[in-house]
Amino acid sequence: MGKVIASISMSVDGFVTGPDDGPAHGLGKGGERLHYWVMGGPWTYDGGHDFAMHGPDKEFYDELVAGFGAGIVGRGMYDAAGAWGGRNPFPGPLFVLTHRTGDQPAPEAGFTFVSGLESTLAQACEKAGDGDVGIGGGADVIRQVLAAGRLDELVLSTAPVILGAGKRLFAGFDRDIDLEVVKVVSSPYATHVRYAIRR
Amino acid sequence: MGKVIASISMSVDGFVTGPDDGPAHGLGKGGERLHYWVMGGPWTYDGGHDFAMHGPDKEFYDELVAGFGAGIVGRGMYDAAGAWGGRNPFPGPLFVLTHRTGDQPAPEAGFTFVSGLESTLAQACEKAGDGDVGIGGGADVIRQVLAAGRLDELVLSTAPVILGAGKRLFAGFDRDIDLEVVKVVSSPYATHVRYAIRR
Repeated sequence: MGKVIASISMSVDGFVTGPDDGPAHGLGKGGERLHYWVMGGPWTYDGGHDFAMHGPDKEFYDELVAGFGAGIVGRGMYDAAGAWGGRNPFPGPLFVLTHRTGDQPAPEAGFTFVSGLESTLAQACEKAGDGDVGIGGGADVIRQVLAAGRLDELVLSTAPVILGAGKRLFAGFDRDIDLEVVKVVSSPYATHVRYAIRR
Repeated sequence: MGKVIASISMSVDGFVTGPDDGPAHGLGKGGERLHYWVMGGPWTYDGGHDFAMHGPDKEFYDELVAGFGAGIVGRGMYDAAGAWGGRNPFPGPLFVLTHRTGDQPAPEAGFTFVSGLESTLAQACEKAGDGDVGIGGGADVIRQVLAAGRLDELVLSTAPVILGAGKRLFAGFDRDIDLEVVKVVSSPYATHVRYAIRR
């Protein structure tokens, strides 16, 4: 069996979105800076750009997702990302955790709406086979998986920005958990740290 | 003139102390783990240990403090650290920001009690000459210097632990500030990132 790995981008002050994130402007006001490393440079929601993920950021990302056999994200992230244009961009099937499972996307999109954390983890692990299950966020989904003791690795890509507002990854999270540094990769756009959860 | 550089150790969830920090148990319950990198291994407040700062942690620290010509800490940190045994362990004079300046320590201890952020910064910069002024914390002092636009560099040593409680470095801090990654050094005990403040 593979690992359950949560990965997310965060500001230095611990926010995974700026204020007012959602379908209108994805990662929120100013939140684009969290994903400079994803896009390969300073982009905005207003227009296109000529660059793409590259260098240490791409090496880190490619290695991380190479083992992914299935993924899980929350409905909020799915909606905020505009369903990634209507097609799953990640390796393996993507399970979307939601209370509203009635309006399933077309099968060829690669998404499945599911409810209930434990059953979703079970389905994702089954689909992943020997591969890892990647948890993409949002913050609440990662906190749930962490609190449930089901996370093997927490991967944080910290962008060089203090946001001052938005959704905080560890908001209301009151557990004490020891981690172990597995790998550190840095670029001008992010410091990526892979932490194993110690149990 | 040198730079004003704040440096502090933090948990992955953004706490610079565990719960109940203070003179009784320094960095708070479980907070020792924030300073494994300082001590060179897993220590506790209960007893001694045979190891000391070493490897990448020591290289990072020595380079950081090499330029320090004076330092500033808050009274809370000074008290919690037990005045470092009664003698200033840092390079250059250490100014202790406090509302109670009456009971000055003996001059040979190397500490001066001062009040008022701006005048303290002015005194520290004068004493530092061409050297840097190091701000050691606590969290409130760092937030004040950052909010006042007087910080040149923020240095965070993130320990591989989720504390779940304590004093959060960015508690109540609502500014949006761009940073620039200057240097990243990692060890099993901490990921050290030096950020320049963009103005």
